[in-house]
Amino acid sequence: MSRILTVGVAQLGPIARSEPRSAVVIRLIDLLTKAHSNGCKFVVFPELALTTFFPRWFIEDEQELNYFYETEMPNAETQPLFDKVAELGVGFYIGYAELTEDEQGITHRYNTAILVDDKGQISAKYRKIHLPGHSEHEEWRPFQHLEKRYFEPGNTGFGSWDFMGGKVGMALCNDRRWPETYRVMALQGAEMIVLGYNTPMHYPPVPQHDHLQAFHNHVVMQASAYQNGCWIIACAKAGNEEGCDLLGESCIIAPTGEILAMAKTVEDELIFADCDFEMTREIKEHIFNFDLHRRPDEYKIISEKK
Amino acid sequence: MSRILTVGVAQLGPIARSEPRSAVVIRLIDLLTKAHSNGCKFVVFPELALTTFFPRWFIEDEQELNYFYETEMPNAETQPLFDKVAELGVGFYIGYAELTEDEQGITHRYNTAILVDDKGQISAKYRKIHLPGHSEHEEWRPFQHLEKRYFEPGNTGFGSWDFMGGKVGMALCNDRRWPETYRVMALQGAEMIVLGYNTPMHYPPVPQHDHLQAFHNHVVMQASAYQNGCWIIACAKAGNEEGCDLLGESCIIAPTGEILAMAKTVEDELIFADCDFEMTREIKEHIFNFDLHRRPDEYKIISEKK
Repeated sequence: MSRILTVGVAQLGPIARSEPRSAVVIRLIDLLTKAHSNGCKFVVFPELALTTFFPRWFIEDEQELNYFYETEMPNAETQPLFDKVAELGVGFYIGYAELTEDEQGITHRYNTAILVDDKGQISAKYRKIHLPGHSEHEEWRPFQHLEKRYFEPGNTGFGSWDFMGGKVGMALCNDRRWPETYRVMALQGAEMIVLGYNTPMHYPPVPQHDHLQAFHNHVVMQASAYQNGCWIIACAKAGNEEGCDLLGESCIIAPTGEILAMAKTVEDELIFADCDFEMTREIKEHIFNFDLHRRPDEYKIISEKK
Repeated sequence: MSRILTVGVAQLGPIARSEPRSAVVIRLIDLLTKAHSNGCKFVVFPELALTTFFPRWFIEDEQELNYFYETEMPNAETQPLFDKVAELGVGFYIGYAELTEDEQGITHRYNTAILVDDKGQISAKYRKIHLPGHSEHEEWRPFQHLEKRYFEPGNTGFGSWDFMGGKVGMALCNDRRWPETYRVMALQGAEMIVLGYNTPMHYPPVPQHDHLQAFHNHVVMQASAYQNGCWIIACAKAGNEEGCDLLGESCIIAPTGEILAMAKTVEDELIFADCDFEMTREIKEHIFNFDLHRRPDEYKIISEKK
């Protein structure tokens, strides 16, 4: 028996620094509507999908910085997206910057993603664990990558949630490069891992690898889909955003590691595919049957050493 | 400054069940000599490189089974290879079936690999940890894969040894499909991981994936080279061996994940490349700087749960 979920990937082209959230939400709703008309029941949006990728700037003024964060979700500007979801019966994943206060009144900043069900209810929240880049202003760079300054590492762990007929995990951008990300979710039963990314084509510390950005993006996800018997649904913010070229190539990867659909532009673009959760068994019950073949005693150093 | 090791991969075509070790050793010496004449200082041979891949048969008679194992290394039949190595000043990696007795007189069987230095001395031994296949005779299969019957899981752990100017780790065949294999070695400082494999083109439990064998072989190794900033040197036993087609595509993979050299036949064939251990730093000190970016506390389940 199949358990098919038709999944859409709603790649976004660039978002200008001056573009208000209300304009972005209109773009999101357009893509969501298009996905619905193509039979999608679930749509994946990018990381930090409501604003420009602000960690590229060193921003000293706290009020200026705070503009890029959401203090509640949904909020006035994103409510129309949640309303549309409930109207169409389509769930979604989206990434955004989160500003929150804990019980002691201490402020925290996270790079966050949520799963929203087909009634517009938030089903799960994830906060990015692998923060790339640097924490101090590095003037030699043509653009900054200050995620280590603007976010704390996530405190949610990697999870796997019952969602739309399957077990779904979430990651964000740099997380996808680390094999542990997928393994921790697969060991909790994940059958599909969804993630958004903002990936500059230029990597200032090692520019001789720039021509490999697209290869690296796909090779880590394809290997991990296969090694964990999971669907991987990956959505880019793409194109030239405020002078910085971002990788596109959003894709839907089967549990065999095969790319079944890929964006062909660096603009707002929808791709979609029928994803059968049952297909994960072809891998999980055979070549990578964890119960039969994994040897956890041999892996201790992985969770002990930096 | 560079630390370049010129590495040869000595892919083997099929070995017949009737082919004596002495004939195989002549083939190994031919490839070693060819590697030396091309400037190689280190040669990688396949897994179970001295005999046919015997786990494809259900062998009940213990004496018949024991024929395929080595009880010492070197031995009379492999000594000419060790002598040649010392003469030419070329080190090697080779896999073989090992039959050994422990201090209590109990017999153990391992799928083993060794590093031999350029003086013909064994520098390190590794026993395969991830044993694929099954332990009972399964008559429905066109051929068996009885590694779980004929070998115990290795008791050496994954290591990383000072060898020929770099830190070198070893794996065998199915090990290469598991991301933990590479990570455990990289966390011990491995800069180059060498491995041999025997990979049937037909996977009886899920034949609909047969056309993906070559893709799967490369994608796991390319992703792991990149994710760990390691050279990966992979050597196949290839071609139609006793009616079973084995994958070739032996390769040399750079720490960027790029395949720099690949065998083009399924026969005895040498490929080689200059491998600079220093190139690992382009990855290890930046995108995958473990000290800066790994989050071991989030990975506990990897070493706790099957």
